[in-house]
Amino acid sequence: MKISGTFLDEISHDIPHQNWGEKEWDNDFAHMKAMGIDTVILIRAGYRDYLTYPSAYLIDQKGCFKPPKDLVQLFLDLSSKHGMRFYFGTYDSGVYWDTGDMQQEVDINLFLIEEAFGKYGQHPSFAGWYLSLELSRKTKGAIEAISGLGKHCKQISDGLPVLISPWIDGKKAVNSKTHLLEKMEAVSLQQHEQEWDEIFSGIRDHIDVVAFQDGQVEIGELEDYLTLNKALADKHGLKSWTNSESFDRDMPIKFLPIKFEKLLLKLEAAKRAGCEKAITFEFSHFMSPQSAYPQAGHLYNRYKEHFNTL
Amino acid sequence: MKISGTFLDEISHDIPHQNWGEKEWDNDFAHMKAMGIDTVILIRAGYRDYLTYPSAYLIDQKGCFKPPKDLVQLFLDLSSKHGMRFYFGTYDSGVYWDTGDMQQEVDINLFLIEEAFGKYGQHPSFAGWYLSLELSRKTKGAIEAISGLGKHCKQISDGLPVLISPWIDGKKAVNSKTHLLEKMEAVSLQQHEQEWDEIFSGIRDHIDVVAFQDGQVEIGELEDYLTLNKALADKHGLKSWTNSESFDRDMPIKFLPIKFEKLLLKLEAAKRAGCEKAITFEFSHFMSPQSAYPQAGHLYNRYKEHFNTL
Amino acid sequence: MKISGTFLDEISHDIPHQNWGEKEWDNDFAHMKAMGIDTVILIRAGYRDYLTYPSAYLIDQKGCFKPPKDLVQLFLDLSSKHGMRFYFGTYDSGVYWDTGDMQQEVDINLFLIEEAFGKYGQHPSFAGWYLSLELSRKTKGAIEAISGLGKHCKQISDGLPVLISPWIDGKKAVNSKTHLLEKMEAVSLQQHEQEWDEIFSGIRDHIDVVAFQDGQVEIGELEDYLTLNKALADKHGLKSWTNSESFDRDMPIKFLPIKFEKLLLKLEAAKRAGCEKAITFEFSHFMSPQSAYPQAGHLYNRYKEHFNTL
Repeated sequence: MKISGTFLDEISHDIPHQNWGEKEWDNDFAHMKAMGIDTVILIRAGYRDYLTYPSAYLIDQKGCFKPPKDLVQLFLDLSSKHGMRFYFGTYDSGVYWDTGDMQQEVDINLFLIEEAFGKYGQHPSFAGWYLSLELSRKTKGAIEAISGLGKHCKQISDGLPVLISPWIDGKKAVNSKTHLLEKMEAVSLQQHEQEWDEIFSGIRDHIDVVAFQDGQVEIGELEDYLTLNKALADKHGLKSWTNSESFDRDMPIKFLPIKFEKLLLKLEAAKRAGCEKAITFEFSHFMSPQSAYPQAGHLYNRYKEHFNTL
Repeated sequence: MKISGTFLDEISHDIPHQNWGEKEWDNDFAHMKAMGIDTVILIRAGYRDYLTYPSAYLIDQKGCFKPPKDLVQLFLDLSSKHGMRFYFGTYDSGVYWDTGDMQQEVDINLFLIEEAFGKYGQHPSFAGWYLSLELSRKTKGAIEAISGLGKHCKQISDGLPVLISPWIDGKKAVNSKTHLLEKMEAVSLQQHEQEWDEIFSGIRDHIDVVAFQDGQVEIGELEDYLTLNKALADKHGLKSWTNSESFDRDMPIKFLPIKFEKLLLKLEAAKRAGCEKAITFEFSHFMSPQSAYPQAGHLYNRYKEHFNTL
Repeated sequence: MKISGTFLDEISHDIPHQNWGEKEWDNDFAHMKAMGIDTVILIRAGYRDYLTYPSAYLIDQKGCFKPPKDLVQLFLDLSSKHGMRFYFGTYDSGVYWDTGDMQQEVDINLFLIEEAFGKYGQHPSFAGWYLSLELSRKTKGAIEAISGLGKHCKQISDGLPVLISPWIDGKKAVNSKTHLLEKMEAVSLQQHEQEWDEIFSGIRDHIDVVAFQDGQVEIGELEDYLTLNKALADKHGLKSWTNSESFDRDMPIKFLPIKFEKLLLKLEAAKRAGCEKAITFEFSHFMSPQSAYPQAGHLYNRYKEHFNTL
């Protein structure tokens, strides 16, 4: 089970920015390609006041900052150059996190999806949508939000695929900005099944792919969750990918590249569970030879050694 | 608005030490110069038991450790070599932080200022003083301390300029050694004005330059604070610089280099507010091509690209 | 007092993994050698589910993961190539930390010690044992555990030396996975003496070397502890080494390389206290020229400059 997709984390939320320019991004896409990556997924079009592209709507009407560089255009052009499929990630206004108001989050994104598709939808590498709302079982209003946004994405884009990447509410599902690594109350496999069966029922018509994050449960328990996720996805006619995180959730420094052995164990579990594709969060900080974290380059080498792609 | 000054953070308080030798420092001054920096400011002469220069007073009478290298001499010599003006930062004994006793902090520094000026004051690059006490509105005894130390500095040095760099008690003004990124109770613009009007009244005769730290408030609110600071400084006959922090306060890792966009937004706000000079905390960890954090070198490149100084 | 030994931290507990392959390890042993290191100590054979070597016992009976690489074999071979003595560190199942059950920890290791010695004991570089249980004064059952394991190690290996590296319960003895840097209640020198006199009485027949960690007390107090430790060790017929930590416990980022001055002060204190050897935790992250933390390479250079081994 090789990794063939990666998120592009260029609206820094909790991973410090690398301050790359065009040249570094071009090199990075080449490194990705050499490792077997064919799909890149923008983690989000913007986060609060910061944007990846100069959205007239968000700048003029919401007071966001005009970004110094149009990264969506850059990523689309590099996708064409390096033979990648690009998924556009929606905007995160922060309103839901601050107030619990999901409707406003949805309304903003319904508008943004149109603007973005108008601007970039005809680019030959524009291949799908990623709904950046990282829902879990307790996310109020998530079913309606995901359905509504997914439906809108598919309608205006003639059915381009829609991806979500939820988290399992396992014991490592803790806020990255606390010092904690684990919490006491984690979801059980049974609860997870019941809740996600319900969620999938509600969103199945407007979503194509579900790629659960694989880092919130212990590696020894992961295969059970992946197998269950695959069965649920099959039942509801969805594709099941794995989002195999390449950063380490077990260390005091939040976050540095994962130990190769852990990544390999997770990919092997995904293979046994029958996942259709593995993507990762994310290549450029945690697996790239030019990452600011040199452990990432060594991870890249170990990965390529293992899969004989050196 | 270009950055033309930087602190030298060579008494490690909360930023890990880079363990540079003379060669690395020499290179770093050259990198600074190439970016347009003409002023370097020693963040502090010492912190608790650790010193930047072998102060007979602090070693013999206070039991501080004799440093393996005289960094003040080195920085002065490199300042001359690279055409920089050097500001000497006072000592932080830790007594105030531990006990609230400001008088002892002042007494120690009154002595140290004389010792240091006797040792280094005739060096052609010795250009001014930095009072390292990072006061804010709640710092008890700060007005008297700053006045007293500033007066002493100017008296013995024939009026060399004295700089302070206070913090705005905004929502990001949190202890670097907690996991917190924000706090609930932040100062309002109105309170800030009232309190700093009072503080400036008390220190105006013995201080020349105020460079508020710019990282404790949201970037969207920064211009209001900078404008107010400038008006207050003008009213009291002080110069208003900005201390544009080049590290990122929004990330779980405390601290790594800031995203270029954020730095640029802050510098643009300072320009609109009429600040007379921009300095940064600090070049060597967060903007230098030879920093241990490679994001810093990329920040340097983005900065130079933007300001056409490549 | 030069550092002549280092731990090998290859079961990541709280220090992120570097993802090195054979080539990097080979280089690292060469760098160690060039600095005067003659002893390498495996920090632990395994931690919970992760192993350094494919232990049939732990994989088949305890469900541990089969490691992608036999690091014990690699480290032994590199020890022979570079003229090092290798100490084998025991396994940490996590059972004691989770449940307080020391007996199970002991039972597992009694078995493991035999397995490991059977597999690697005839290797010419296999030179001793390290009991990885990091005991302090409050560790229940520690005396019996250390005695029992030490006795077993010596019996099956014809008396090869056994090393322990306990921690002083000083004010910096805090959990690495909290944000804290210090705690309020630290041991006094007197308590430390009384308690360790008792512990040494109980373990003296089955242990050869005690290397206290040197980072949990203030540097200004360290010499008193080292001197006391040496006196206690002498009284009980043990060798007293120092484990001079090369990472910095005073910074918000847990952990990056230490400031050279601090390391030097600690080594000088150990020299005055009469320690027989200095080892460090650990070279590969915190002192190596190829560490992912470039501060480590600069520390290596400062160290070599100081000791004239450039």
